[in-house]
Amino acid sequence: MEELINGLGLIGIAVFAISGALAAMRQEMDAFGLVVIATVTAIGGGTIRDIILDVPVFWVQDPMSLYIVIAMAAITPFWGRMLESRMSILVLADACGLALFAVTGTEKALNFGATPLVAVMMGVMSAAAGGMIRDVLCNEVPLVLKKELYALPAIIGGACLVLLHMAGFDQKLNITLACMITLSIRLIAIKYSLSLPPVEKR
Amino acid sequence: MEELINGLGLIGIAVFAISGALAAMRQEMDAFGLVVIATVTAIGGGTIRDIILDVPVFWVQDPMSLYIVIAMAAITPFWGRMLESRMSILVLADACGLALFAVTGTEKALNFGATPLVAVMMGVMSAAAGGMIRDVLCNEVPLVLKKELYALPAIIGGACLVLLHMAGFDQKLNITLACMITLSIRLIAIKYSLSLPPVEKR
Amino acid sequence: MEELINGLGLIGIAVFAISGALAAMRQEMDAFGLVVIATVTAIGGGTIRDIILDVPVFWVQDPMSLYIVIAMAAITPFWGRMLESRMSILVLADACGLALFAVTGTEKALNFGATPLVAVMMGVMSAAAGGMIRDVLCNEVPLVLKKELYALPAIIGGACLVLLHMAGFDQKLNITLACMITLSIRLIAIKYSLSLPPVEKR
Repeated sequence: MEELINGLGLIGIAVFAISGALAAMRQEMDAFGLVVIATVTAIGGGTIRDIILDVPVFWVQDPMSLYIVIAMAAITPFWGRMLESRMSILVLADACGLALFAVTGTEKALNFGATPLVAVMMGVMSAAAGGMIRDVLCNEVPLVLKKELYALPAIIGGACLVLLHMAGFDQKLNITLACMITLSIRLIAIKYSLSLPPVEKR
Repeated sequence: MEELINGLGLIGIAVFAISGALAAMRQEMDAFGLVVIATVTAIGGGTIRDIILDVPVFWVQDPMSLYIVIAMAAITPFWGRMLESRMSILVLADACGLALFAVTGTEKALNFGATPLVAVMMGVMSAAAGGMIRDVLCNEVPLVLKKELYALPAIIGGACLVLLHMAGFDQKLNITLACMITLSIRLIAIKYSLSLPPVEKR
Repeated sequence: MEELINGLGLIGIAVFAISGALAAMRQEMDAFGLVVIATVTAIGGGTIRDIILDVPVFWVQDPMSLYIVIAMAAITPFWGRMLESRMSILVLADACGLALFAVTGTEKALNFGATPLVAVMMGVMSAAAGGMIRDVLCNEVPLVLKKELYALPAIIGGACLVLLHMAGFDQKLNITLACMITLSIRLIAIKYSLSLPPVEKR
């Protein structure tokens, strides 16, 4: 099970690294900028999560994530056209990454004794903070704060995991279910172009 | 005394959360963006302070701050017009938050054995860093770096606390005095629209 | 040796603080903004490095760095014209700072048991992250990601140090050599205006 989670997490990292590399290319960054943006997008959220929980940062312990990020940053420029012409594959993969990061981030926080609310926050942070740092470095207001129904699936998925966890069900089952819930809501949001409206004063 | 500080700190968090929520609404963010900006404004500075001091992050230990932030983020859209028409109340409350964060941040750093200069820095960071992250996420140069006499009261208040602490006076007295000094300077700065001039080359 | 590294590191901090103060003055910030930008430029990278490695943050332990930053921030406005008219001295000093931060950052990470890839990352982060935060606070896309051959010398220098370290040579020799390699590449890049081209899609 541990291995399954890790394996799925590495796929999420690869997808997020590609999305970061594509954003860097749109900004006409050089090769170093491309690697930096790919890296912060893929591992930034998990890094902040680990620092706040005061546990060892995951990629300092096991550099496999870094190898994957660098490999993805290296191949994205050559595959860029192809990837963009198959945008739907990328969007699907990104939705999987979102689901995996949100659920495994929440699970990790629960395992280190975080309260339910903090655990859900850590899941959302794992999934969304990397993309927010990417947008800040590219000098844009983070997209996730304005136009996309991106964080809500992560919040709902994390909350489901906490509830299932408290109900005492099997860990494998909980993680699988919560991932599927997150992924489903995200895919429905993409398919029907759902988004939250801007908040207005009343 | 401990309880008094905590209670005052929670009021500061509520005020900063409201100012973050109002900034998010000006940026036409959605409900998630509003909660994120309210959260980083209210607890961002204290989080960085705790990470640098390598002590447990305060809201991971006790989630009360988070409940307050979420409650404030939820009610601000409904109270937005009313709050802005009573701007002077908000400005006064923000000045109280500044004083409380600066002094309690300095006190916390001193308790964990920080040197005087580091302790004052931690106080200023508690009070000002959250607002700086808010402005960066909203894609603006942080206001506190340019146009407002905002950080100076925090620096003076923190320095007073350190001096009183070294003079060996009673902790309650020290904190009360330092808070009042910070608040007074800030209110005088607001009343007379004082600000530091831009630094020019000589 | 330890003292030599520390002494050289403090020179690097002084140079980076001046470059931060000059950037703040270009943005017409006030005195507080100038100190903040000088501080994050000079010690931001090393702070993130220490937090990720989970070791005590260097300037909390020994406040000498902070005194130097504040002194540099205080004198830069008076020396501003003179400094800019001798830009070449500043650029040379900045290249020395880059070399010192990259190599001592890598060395510190190796001493705390980091893997080679993580150690090189920590060196680059020490050298470049402070400038990136400076640019984000000044609301610009970090220069280092786009137009300058700035990070590559740090990467090569850090990698050389790791290789020399693994080859078992004397620590003093390794550090001296790696610093000279980093500095040489950076100076060549400046002299011939070398930069990496933007990455393009293929």
